[in-house]
Amino acid sequence: MVILGIDPGYAIIGYGVIDTNAKDMVLDYGAITTPKEDTLPIRLESIEASLKYLFEKYKPDVVAIEELFYFKNQKTVIQVAQARGVIILACQKYCGNIYEYTPLQIKQALTGQGRAEKAQVQYMVKAILGLDSIPKPDDAADALAVAICHSQTSPMLNANKA
Amino acid sequence: MVILGIDPGYAIIGYGVIDTNAKDMVLDYGAITTPKEDTLPIRLESIEASLKYLFEKYKPDVVAIEELFYFKNQKTVIQVAQARGVIILACQKYCGNIYEYTPLQIKQALTGQGRAEKAQVQYMVKAILGLDSIPKPDDAADALAVAICHSQTSPMLNANKA
Repeated sequence: MVILGIDPGYAIIGYGVIDTNAKDMVLDYGAITTPKEDTLPIRLESIEASLKYLFEKYKPDVVAIEELFYFKNQKTVIQVAQARGVIILACQKYCGNIYEYTPLQIKQALTGQGRAEKAQVQYMVKAILGLDSIPKPDDAADALAVAICHSQTSPMLNANKA
Repeated sequence: MVILGIDPGYAIIGYGVIDTNAKDMVLDYGAITTPKEDTLPIRLESIEASLKYLFEKYKPDVVAIEELFYFKNQKTVIQVAQARGVIILACQKYCGNIYEYTPLQIKQALTGQGRAEKAQVQYMVKAILGLDSIPKPDDAADALAVAICHSQTSPMLNANKA
């Protein structure tokens, strides 16, 4: 099963692609970035185009995406949520099989406890995927974490199906 | 000039289409609704499809859309912002000419004062467009208001261009 994990954002969107049947599970990871000089419509358009490219390249069976947690800054939450709407629609259009996980569920799945530190989650991403180092940027590591989370929880039928 | 006004939302999105060169300016108004029984991806997909239909039918020269103001309820703001991202992307794809206006700017343009009551704005929508009654639902009246706002402010070059 090929899983595309996504850490949603506006200026930077982390992604990670894993194949749970392969010996080397990691197919790709990285970040989609949108320059702040561009307008909102242009930035949303470029997020859609970058995701389309990833879907066509890796043809994931399923997408696992982090739920938005709450920010103190309302302007940030609006920007990230606007981008997340575009991301969800692209996932629906190009895959149709989307699961959402809270930060708590992701930490729980990777480390066994919901209050784990970020560094501990990143360490587990590296360990589980057999990588030489912790994936960079953090957004890519977070995206791989949600993909791993799905691979470990998907046997529960319809868990968090969006 | 044909203007599509949009009042963004998640369960209900108001729209209003006016032609500033026509004697009867109002071409159409109404609301796109998404049933809460449907999942997030399905609801976003249906918003995109409904907007595509409006763009193909009326071929607006420009879109005028309300900016998100801040809600007390973070869950609501995330849902509406996710939908607004999808709306902005559809406007970019099918029109490419988008202007954003704050509630304050809209009230100012229609009534001459930023602190106008909702009823006063709705009365002006009816009066300016020469309608027999106030358009229903409120979301459609709000969408016509933002379209009128653009028709009255667009001579200022690049005002609020998104």
